[in-house]
Amino acid sequence: MKPPLEAAEQLLPDIQASPDDRHLAIDRVGVSNLRYPLTVSTRDGRGQTTVGEFNLSVSLPHDQKGTHMSRFLEVLNEQPSPMVPRDVLKLAQDVQRRLQAPHAFVRVDFPFFIDKPAPVSGVVGKIDVRAGLSAEVGPTGRNDWMMSVKVPATSLCPCSRQISEYGAHNQRCEMEAHVRIVEGASMSFEELIDRVEQAASTQVFSVLKRPDEKWVTEKAYENPKFVEDIVRDLALAMEREPRIAWYRVRSENYESIHNHDAFAQIERDLGR
Amino acid sequence: MKPPLEAAEQLLPDIQASPDDRHLAIDRVGVSNLRYPLTVSTRDGRGQTTVGEFNLSVSLPHDQKGTHMSRFLEVLNEQPSPMVPRDVLKLAQDVQRRLQAPHAFVRVDFPFFIDKPAPVSGVVGKIDVRAGLSAEVGPTGRNDWMMSVKVPATSLCPCSRQISEYGAHNQRCEMEAHVRIVEGASMSFEELIDRVEQAASTQVFSVLKRPDEKWVTEKAYENPKFVEDIVRDLALAMEREPRIAWYRVRSENYESIHNHDAFAQIERDLGR
Amino acid sequence: MKPPLEAAEQLLPDIQASPDDRHLAIDRVGVSNLRYPLTVSTRDGRGQTTVGEFNLSVSLPHDQKGTHMSRFLEVLNEQPSPMVPRDVLKLAQDVQRRLQAPHAFVRVDFPFFIDKPAPVSGVVGKIDVRAGLSAEVGPTGRNDWMMSVKVPATSLCPCSRQISEYGAHNQRCEMEAHVRIVEGASMSFEELIDRVEQAASTQVFSVLKRPDEKWVTEKAYENPKFVEDIVRDLALAMEREPRIAWYRVRSENYESIHNHDAFAQIERDLGR
Amino acid sequence: MKPPLEAAEQLLPDIQASPDDRHLAIDRVGVSNLRYPLTVSTRDGRGQTTVGEFNLSVSLPHDQKGTHMSRFLEVLNEQPSPMVPRDVLKLAQDVQRRLQAPHAFVRVDFPFFIDKPAPVSGVVGKIDVRAGLSAEVGPTGRNDWMMSVKVPATSLCPCSRQISEYGAHNQRCEMEAHVRIVEGASMSFEELIDRVEQAASTQVFSVLKRPDEKWVTEKAYENPKFVEDIVRDLALAMEREPRIAWYRVRSENYESIHNHDAFAQIERDLGR
Repeated sequence: MKPPLEAAEQLLPDIQASPDDRHLAIDRVGVSNLRYPLTVSTRDGRGQTTVGEFNLSVSLPHDQKGTHMSRFLEVLNEQPSPMVPRDVLKLAQDVQRRLQAPHAFVRVDFPFFIDKPAPVSGVVGKIDVRAGLSAEVGPTGRNDWMMSVKVPATSLCPCSRQISEYGAHNQRCEMEAHVRIVEGASMSFEELIDRVEQAASTQVFSVLKRPDEKWVTEKAYENPKFVEDIVRDLALAMEREPRIAWYRVRSENYESIHNHDAFAQIERDLGR
Repeated sequence: MKPPLEAAEQLLPDIQASPDDRHLAIDRVGVSNLRYPLTVSTRDGRGQTTVGEFNLSVSLPHDQKGTHMSRFLEVLNEQPSPMVPRDVLKLAQDVQRRLQAPHAFVRVDFPFFIDKPAPVSGVVGKIDVRAGLSAEVGPTGRNDWMMSVKVPATSLCPCSRQISEYGAHNQRCEMEAHVRIVEGASMSFEELIDRVEQAASTQVFSVLKRPDEKWVTEKAYENPKFVEDIVRDLALAMEREPRIAWYRVRSENYESIHNHDAFAQIERDLGR
Repeated sequence: MKPPLEAAEQLLPDIQASPDDRHLAIDRVGVSNLRYPLTVSTRDGRGQTTVGEFNLSVSLPHDQKGTHMSRFLEVLNEQPSPMVPRDVLKLAQDVQRRLQAPHAFVRVDFPFFIDKPAPVSGVVGKIDVRAGLSAEVGPTGRNDWMMSVKVPATSLCPCSRQISEYGAHNQRCEMEAHVRIVEGASMSFEELIDRVEQAASTQVFSVLKRPDEKWVTEKAYENPKFVEDIVRDLALAMEREPRIAWYRVRSENYESIHNHDAFAQIERDLGR
Repeated sequence: MKPPLEAAEQLLPDIQASPDDRHLAIDRVGVSNLRYPLTVSTRDGRGQTTVGEFNLSVSLPHDQKGTHMSRFLEVLNEQPSPMVPRDVLKLAQDVQRRLQAPHAFVRVDFPFFIDKPAPVSGVVGKIDVRAGLSAEVGPTGRNDWMMSVKVPATSLCPCSRQISEYGAHNQRCEMEAHVRIVEGASMSFEELIDRVEQAASTQVFSVLKRPDEKWVTEKAYENPKFVEDIVRDLALAMEREPRIAWYRVRSENYESIHNHDAFAQIERDLGR
């Protein structure tokens, strides 16, 4: 005997399952702008609860009219918790299986908080990093996943410093790294953030007392970087990390002397 | 003997504490666009961890040059947890005390998730509501706090239904309620959300199986409402709730037949 | 004989015009997030074509079920062009008349471009300012209108400069002024922008060659300002301008050393 | 004798032109989030003035430290006006030449307004479409450009209609088409918009009187489409248009019964 929900469903026509004769397969169909809680694993193995923005989709064969959207939501209710980065692959496999689809795609972005002691006073506060995970699984077991972080920092302009009698324009910047980890390896979000943060003129902090502010100001002035320097130093940091197989790094500077931003980007497959 | 940080701070001039002679008091000065974790109390007394967007500020007397921004962050590190709605007042009092300010203002917005069973199948999924808390404290013990929710729902147009042979245009809408609770009373976010949700043509859900979709479609058609109807029914729901002393309700409909939205708003002091 | 459209309309029931028995007047009902072209008058009397984001609404008496939303759009099709700031009042009066409403409210925000020569090279480029107009008209001829600008600039921290051996943190900031003009006077957007721009450490520019960048860097360093200083200098500029009857000024600094912003705000009725 | 600006510039060191030894070429470096006016050609050959959001960049050889950002702005000051779609290629070539760069990339997005008569009353109002242009030029004369539109419309769910006694959930959707035009051909934005608009359950309008609203409601009900149907019909429309060589189409439905969206996407190179 069927369970009641399945029986009730079968009394209603399943239009999504009907055939389609336009001979056009769909690359991706699914749900987006979907906010759902998730718990992400931290370096110490514990979990941090945050709010994910999910995008879940599958490919649809040419002869099938529609997908069953409610199943994406059901998969989210059974997500791994706490989620280590590579669990995003499991989530994509769950989507693929539950929707019986040739391909499945998952992307989720969320605020990830790190505890950050001020450089002199040591007072600890939290800084939010925009973190992300994505995965793609295909019909022949081909699968792929990536992790990403977008880290706020300070950049100080070398040209401005050099040509001016005093001072140098500086600004908040956001440094991004999207990386593919080599087969079998793993990396925590904190490890990736550590590597990214080194590329700026100086890091940003949550609580800064006066001795900290002095330190940060002087550190940035001693360490001027164009957006081009930052993106190259980001790239070098990725190349030196043997666990990274592919990367795309980017920096965006919210220029203090303009009403537009400056950005630079490098993408490289390291063939590892 | 002074603690080391305080000693180090005093070696550096405190410009913020120096006098100002422009004879202009500042209404509000503080920090904004600040993301920080918070744990909000749920109806059952447990906590839900989410991500707040904070705006913290104080008034500044005319003869003082600046405020000490780092103290706002220190207050956040000691926030009540889990936070019941009226704790936002305590947070504002902490800001006032820590910054030795005549007035203090706090506002925080965050996604709040509710478990929502589908109407027929009963399958449970989470829906995100945009919730908020704000408080203001003044020099003579005058204080004030509010809570708010922004709840997604469906609206179906009565005019479209009436004049058409079949069908009726409908759309997602967002219903907002900002309320002040009467002295000594309390209300959970879930209680406020329950009152708001009743005002729409039908609620929205996370997981909808076919029998649920049939129910939701027919329910909306049986219950057509203009944006004017929704906002009036929101107002009635607030007036019937004896714990509410003041309200501002609003609905915004993402019209399916236009590329702009329709909205309506009512604000009323119930003098309770 | 009636025109055909009116005749066709009358064949269909007008549900909006039917009575309502909830005894609740609606403060505002209308359209929002509506993008429409508009042509704004520039200082030289010519027009600048831009894209407005409109919010148009009316009040609705307690005994009327709904408003006629399509009429808002019809009013937009007949807007004054080019629009001088006080024409927003005329637009609100048109809404009031067309919808036969007790009150009407109009708000529109749009990018307004100014030509800005670099400080040394004189190379001219355009900077976008976020400008706005709003108006409110009531049943007894009471009416009110305001103009606003949000101007990007640079702020440099006096504390950071004072306590550091070299350098000083600086950042893009946005300075806002909302003003009510005294009865019978007028002001162009450019005049208001000129008064606002003076309050920052330095202005921002479109094209900056190296001699310009040197000038801007040194100018900011010579002119350090807290967000509190900026908002006070904005307030002073408003008070010194006899055509301004009421103002609300605000500065928001995108702190280069933090991942949050700093802001300050002053509102004052000058009773002129 | 040198012009004064060039002379003044040469007195200051040109750090951007200095060598770099990290052996890392940069894929893209430039400016983003830059708002600037532009005038786009309409079908009738006249121009429509709007506000562009520009992203301009170049590649940078491994041995060069930095690019000269001010030159991007200078190119914008000399943009073609009115701009026909393929002029974006000229803009990219201007960037490449002015910055003496191996590759140049241009992207600009802007609101484009079309006049839209209501289906029965014929009352005309404007609807905003999000339009875009992008181009890429390389060292060996390889070059490429694309145009895109994002058009609002209505979608009505076939499943909801079929399983329900009455009604059917419907919602605003946004349909996107990015296309590459075959060598030597041209297409106006209005022509592309016309092809895209046919794929929805019904179009959206600016002004709708009651007879129009009846028409739109019934038209949508007679023409139910899943997001999968819309994206397939978009794809068919692109395939039938001989001037299109490559396309990526997408529809995003702002589901009225959920607080998340549904989307579908197809990309195809037609080898023309």
